[in-house]
Amino acid sequence: MLDKAPNWINEINWNQDGLIPVIIQDISSETVLMHAWMNKESLLCSVEKGLTVFWSRSRQRLWKKGESSGHIQHIKQIRLDCDADTLLIKVEQEGNIACHTGRKSCFYQQFDRDNWITVEPVIKNPDIIYDPEK
Amino acid sequence: MLDKAPNWINEINWNQDGLIPVIIQDISSETVLMHAWMNKESLLCSVEKGLTVFWSRSRQRLWKKGESSGHIQHIKQIRLDCDADTLLIKVEQEGNIACHTGRKSCFYQQFDRDNWITVEPVIKNPDIIYDPEK
Repeated sequence: MLDKAPNWINEINWNQDGLIPVIIQDISSETVLMHAWMNKESLLCSVEKGLTVFWSRSRQRLWKKGESSGHIQHIKQIRLDCDADTLLIKVEQEGNIACHTGRKSCFYQQFDRDNWITVEPVIKNPDIIYDPEK
Repeated sequence: MLDKAPNWINEINWNQDGLIPVIIQDISSETVLMHAWMNKESLLCSVEKGLTVFWSRSRQRLWKKGESSGHIQHIKQIRLDCDADTLLIKVEQEGNIACHTGRKSCFYQQFDRDNWITVEPVIKNPDIIYDPEK
């Protein structure tokens, strides 16, 4: 797959680990949903499928977003920044839940007088999201 | 300054270089403006001033956003994600220009049929932005 990497993918400034940070934004609400990482293979896979596929740094493997939860992300637009070292991907979010905690967005902790306060509700209990018998 | 680092800053999962990625979003339009990095000192400085101060990895120094251009960012909200390893900061953007190319957002290149296409206009010529005699 990577032997035939197209020009557009080589125009990206991949970091020393061959990765690029990716911002995921909901195309309807404009909410920033999450931040993750891609390598060339996961970006090519994402473009091919029209669904987000990340590189999991902790598990060192491709991570098809929604593979366990069903909360897949349909890619609607891909943007690259001025330094070609960050991607912004606008998506339609299945289930309106991007976070593994069952919240819409991963950015649910807000800085308030020297504390991080949880300000977003859990839409669906993660025990139910990740229960194969659900 | 860092001898007295408060608890909330130690709850952040700083990476191996002592940095965290930061997404900057316009609080009015919800446009994602840019992606940059902070270390503890720059985050403390940002909170204290109410203005974004980043860590420039290329120059290895604090970078007060807008120090040359005047396009400073007034911090309105700071969010931390579920893994405590990414910040989302909502700002009011001076001049409505965040990018050094004179565009509103740094994410002005859109993927379109195997190419990156520039889809956002230059609001102000960078030669004028960065000319001290302007």
